[in-house]
Amino acid sequence: MQDIKKYIEENKQRFLDELFELLRFPSVSADPKYKDDVLKTADYVAEKLKAAGAEKVEVCPTQGYPIVYGEKIIDASKPTVLVYGHYDVQPADPLELWTSPPFEPVVKDEKIFARGACDDKGQFYMHVKAFELMMSLNTLPCNIKFMIEGEEEVGSSNLDEFVKANKQRLKSDVVLISDTAMISLESPSIETGLRGLSYLEVEITGPNRDLHSGVYGGAVANPATILCQMIASLHDSNNHITIPGFYDDVASLSNEEREQLNAAPYNEHDYKTDLGVEELWGELGYTAIEHTGIRPTLEVNGIWGGYIGEGAKTVLPSKASAKISMRLVPNQQSEKITQLFKQHFESIAPKSVKVKVTPHHGGEPVVTPTDSIAFKAAEKAIEEAFGKKPIPTRGGGSIPIVSLFEKELGIKTVLMGFGLDSDNLHSPNEKFDIANYFKGIETIPLFHKYFTELSK
Amino acid sequence: MQDIKKYIEENKQRFLDELFELLRFPSVSADPKYKDDVLKTADYVAEKLKAAGAEKVEVCPTQGYPIVYGEKIIDASKPTVLVYGHYDVQPADPLELWTSPPFEPVVKDEKIFARGACDDKGQFYMHVKAFELMMSLNTLPCNIKFMIEGEEEVGSSNLDEFVKANKQRLKSDVVLISDTAMISLESPSIETGLRGLSYLEVEITGPNRDLHSGVYGGAVANPATILCQMIASLHDSNNHITIPGFYDDVASLSNEEREQLNAAPYNEHDYKTDLGVEELWGELGYTAIEHTGIRPTLEVNGIWGGYIGEGAKTVLPSKASAKISMRLVPNQQSEKITQLFKQHFESIAPKSVKVKVTPHHGGEPVVTPTDSIAFKAAEKAIEEAFGKKPIPTRGGGSIPIVSLFEKELGIKTVLMGFGLDSDNLHSPNEKFDIANYFKGIETIPLFHKYFTELSK
Repeated sequence: MQDIKKYIEENKQRFLDELFELLRFPSVSADPKYKDDVLKTADYVAEKLKAAGAEKVEVCPTQGYPIVYGEKIIDASKPTVLVYGHYDVQPADPLELWTSPPFEPVVKDEKIFARGACDDKGQFYMHVKAFELMMSLNTLPCNIKFMIEGEEEVGSSNLDEFVKANKQRLKSDVVLISDTAMISLESPSIETGLRGLSYLEVEITGPNRDLHSGVYGGAVANPATILCQMIASLHDSNNHITIPGFYDDVASLSNEEREQLNAAPYNEHDYKTDLGVEELWGELGYTAIEHTGIRPTLEVNGIWGGYIGEGAKTVLPSKASAKISMRLVPNQQSEKITQLFKQHFESIAPKSVKVKVTPHHGGEPVVTPTDSIAFKAAEKAIEEAFGKKPIPTRGGGSIPIVSLFEKELGIKTVLMGFGLDSDNLHSPNEKFDIANYFKGIETIPLFHKYFTELSK
Repeated sequence: MQDIKKYIEENKQRFLDELFELLRFPSVSADPKYKDDVLKTADYVAEKLKAAGAEKVEVCPTQGYPIVYGEKIIDASKPTVLVYGHYDVQPADPLELWTSPPFEPVVKDEKIFARGACDDKGQFYMHVKAFELMMSLNTLPCNIKFMIEGEEEVGSSNLDEFVKANKQRLKSDVVLISDTAMISLESPSIETGLRGLSYLEVEITGPNRDLHSGVYGGAVANPATILCQMIASLHDSNNHITIPGFYDDVASLSNEEREQLNAAPYNEHDYKTDLGVEELWGELGYTAIEHTGIRPTLEVNGIWGGYIGEGAKTVLPSKASAKISMRLVPNQQSEKITQLFKQHFESIAPKSVKVKVTPHHGGEPVVTPTDSIAFKAAEKAIEEAFGKKPIPTRGGGSIPIVSLFEKELGIKTVLMGFGLDSDNLHSPNEKFDIANYFKGIETIPLFHKYFTELSK
């Protein structure tokens, strides 16, 4: 433990500089105009893995962005940990809300501000540096494999094929991912579940051209109005989702499970103050922790139509569109929910408009076991590094890869995240606390140590 | 009549060239980036009025864009006609839907395609050319005054003050405006009423920043969802507007008036085919002609919020906004309706969001008399030029100036429009039929002739 702390102390500045260099790449996978930057980011990751001591490092091409692979096999008889992360990031807009440029990382009150600082560049890079540390101190206790992809923020569309085609190369005993949050440094926690995702785009078309709202208004259906009516109808007055069959497969938790979940530190007043809202929202009959952890949702991620420029334009628009995504919980299935949404949304469109529903991507919900060797190793590692036993929580986000791994490689995942909910993931001014970055680098070698010991 | 036709024939090409030059100015009053172009347009109009023989031509400054004035007083004892028009145009977007650049006019199958071709550059310029014609042929029978403004598309916000300050200069016996449509060259018509307008912008704010839809989704109100719910609630299942008091002042027509209105040529099948819609929409209990003529409406002119770029972004947006306008009918009052909307919209917002309602501009509905000398003069002029008596119709659009004139100058207006509903006003590919342009120039001198005769 002491030599770990010492090594981190001696290399602190370099560990930061390298992360900053990584954060300067605008690797936005959703926007084609960043294609070259995303590709450069993959090369940088490969280079750093090599430098840290990884072997067989390869930037593996896919139909989309490449997957960076690297490994260090010390002894075939030892357990193998597969580290997953992603080097792509969310789009940075709305740019005007950033207090510093998203791709020019800066440190303010001990926090690193940049798009990707936490999600997931800062978090996966902790593993690269922890690996370097174990190699340098010659304390790597097990085999380790890295798979860092570039399409997580757009649904990991090509990972499935890659995993299926590389089952042997990826063969491991556990997947270790740092792409989630903990409650705080004072209340460390481990997420034991993630929500799935079904993401779609809808387009409503009324008249075949934009019309003068005076000449035609009143006699022709306004697609923006109709879209609003259709979206409004997707929740009832209790904020239940009205899509027929939507809740059919939702696993309900026992009272004990719910009590345990709600035992996690949570202060509604602070929560509301942080968000600047007077009142929370949510499905009747559940707590905020449950709303974001064990219940499915339907969110409008974006909506647009008609004249959105400055001033006034009296137009009756031809089209209106929205991006809508649903977070799924065990045992909902992404494809089934996507179909249910599509059928329902098409069925509620009045004849006065045309409706087009285009699925974007999805991911399956997962629950990770809390009785596995890997989970116990993570508990011990965090307890030693933080001086506190971690609390199990349910995460609201989605990491499609987790269920993919279970399905294709038959191995479970440990979600050892060091971010915070307040890190503004997917928002302007994303940040990652420097303390969490280094605490992560300190904790990861301990995970490998205990996982190897407990595996004996 | 013969010498009118002859003069037009001899100057056809020049009349087109000058209009094209006018159309090349991108005089978009709604968008500040066109400021210089709008100002240049005013100068061009002044120059052309002078060239046609107008005196005391002046580009009159206002708080906003200038008003171009010019006059020709031949004899104080003769009647005076005040010609009103506007040289500003609607924004051209969505640009990608134009088949030719909006500010590079072209002629295709005898139609002039350009933003402003009909609304209102093409139509007010007919009066400038008809004036030139009467001056050249020495047949101007009455006094004439021109007032061409540059803010009609943004609510004529500074016209009120100008008119109040220039009552003497503007003193006239009738206002003549060509900024409306007729049914067709085969079925000429005169609009005898216009709808008023109340235009607002609404902004819904949920959390104080964009959020990760996974981490927070389900517990925090999504402003886009709430905005949709609020907008959806503004119409009931019969497409009546639900704002309390909204219909209180609506003048209801007698069965005779409604029958007369519905007697106008109208073919639902052609109407739907032209718009590419399978079914029309509208308030229960009224026909399409009534929906667009004598009933008030509420339209979403634009809506936006969250991520509207390419691909997918799983964000729970902080804000969502919409531009909403209502068309008003006699005897609704723009300011009163704006207040009713504001109060109602604020009252239906849940505590989980903040709502901001910003009025843009408005205009009062009007009905023009059909028993006036001016209307009879317009009827005779059209009958002579078209060989058919015009049908009285109700226009769905709004020209705030009309009620302003009645109020401030105590004079009525004649809406002698030569456009067509199919001219794509406020839409991509706005056009004006060349035949209508010249037919207008031919008809206008006849109006002045008969108005002067009937005034004796």
